[in-house]
Amino acid sequence: MEEYLEFAKDIAYQAGKIMIQYFNQNTGASYKGDKTIVTMADKEINSYLIKKVKEKYPDHSVDGEEEQYGKSNLVWVCDPVDGTAMYARHIPVAVFSLALVIDGVPNIGVVYDPFTTSLYTAIKGKGAYKNGEKISVNDYSLEDIRTVCHCDMWSKAKYNVCKVFEELRKRTRLNDIGSITRASCLVATGDYSLTIFTGTEHKNCDIAAVKVIVEEAGGKVTDLFGNEQRYDQSIKGL
Amino acid sequence: MEEYLEFAKDIAYQAGKIMIQYFNQNTGASYKGDKTIVTMADKEINSYLIKKVKEKYPDHSVDGEEEQYGKSNLVWVCDPVDGTAMYARHIPVAVFSLALVIDGVPNIGVVYDPFTTSLYTAIKGKGAYKNGEKISVNDYSLEDIRTVCHCDMWSKAKYNVCKVFEELRKRTRLNDIGSITRASCLVATGDYSLTIFTGTEHKNCDIAAVKVIVEEAGGKVTDLFGNEQRYDQSIKGL
Repeated sequence: MEEYLEFAKDIAYQAGKIMIQYFNQNTGASYKGDKTIVTMADKEINSYLIKKVKEKYPDHSVDGEEEQYGKSNLVWVCDPVDGTAMYARHIPVAVFSLALVIDGVPNIGVVYDPFTTSLYTAIKGKGAYKNGEKISVNDYSLEDIRTVCHCDMWSKAKYNVCKVFEELRKRTRLNDIGSITRASCLVATGDYSLTIFTGTEHKNCDIAAVKVIVEEAGGKVTDLFGNEQRYDQSIKGL
Repeated sequence: MEEYLEFAKDIAYQAGKIMIQYFNQNTGASYKGDKTIVTMADKEINSYLIKKVKEKYPDHSVDGEEEQYGKSNLVWVCDPVDGTAMYARHIPVAVFSLALVIDGVPNIGVVYDPFTTSLYTAIKGKGAYKNGEKISVNDYSLEDIRTVCHCDMWSKAKYNVCKVFEELRKRTRLNDIGSITRASCLVATGDYSLTIFTGTEHKNCDIAAVKVIVEEAGGKVTDLFGNEQRYDQSIKGL
């Protein structure tokens, strides 16, 4: 597992370089123009991951948001750029996310934020770390002034949780910083208290890494109904 | 006005240095600990502004979020770190904001994002710029897939706009990136379409600069009721 983690970290640092490179190529503010930049960064990172897995672990498979490779019970699940809508608008919150999922269970999680050079890592059973320092969730109540919840605000999602948002909004602070993966890492560090995400189709890519990072930091990650779920297939939210 | 703008830009770059300096002093994830960092950055920037105004324009006054100076119809209105809750959580979205308000009307606006080194500037009647390039708002409809609205999510504000959020959520994408000033600059560049803010007491500090930046980019800035308002006193939202 330690070896796999080192492999994942190397990929993350390279992905961060690619993210910064395209982020700084400011070709204007039009969404259409920038969407191309996002796609280029996404694809380049995804291809790089597949190339590296083929070289080092040809029996493993890759489930990337942009591209897949192979079929194995050991799957590298990756969201090359989580928070693309923000990335396209030059807001520096997007992160790279990579997990090694074995038989549906994330065993290794790595998230890299190249904008503040923050690396979040976890091996199942071995704790969670940010830049090598142990991290843990907070124990604030919902009403605590320090509590912040990240809620994915899409109303057109398969699961409409507007009523939950309404209840939460009465009691605490909600926001949506545009990257569920970054927000979930902030749960792991105790900066945030809760994240809710309504994504389903192929959205295991967004969540697989933080499943192990948040839980190794002492938190709990389930689907929207409080159940465990596999992370090598589509999910029922977070 | 050109001379005032150069003065404001110099302050902005120095403020950005201070913001980055404290941001990188990671003293751990506890909100209490980090709140101190925010206050230190806020206070240091506010003091620096007052020192510079006293040196160069001793007849002008300063209305900073942390500290005030003098009494004049020419007021430098400043939010040293807008987005402090995010800044305290090591999310790189906070910005510095400074306006020259004459008889209640913002005539110059400068916003600086030190994380992506983006400088937004405007002089009333002379257009709005990002790093020297002209910017303009978009003309997307609410239902356009490119439309993003930033809504301040506090329910305990004086003006409760939850019903407005509900309507907007049905038709478009909402988020809350944690800095009304940054979000409003994104309206000026056409990346966002709309911002709503429920702040009142001394919140002219957050909005004075973007009032002129957004309007010089072709947008419209009013209070929550669609009326014009002064920016040298408390406001009725945005």
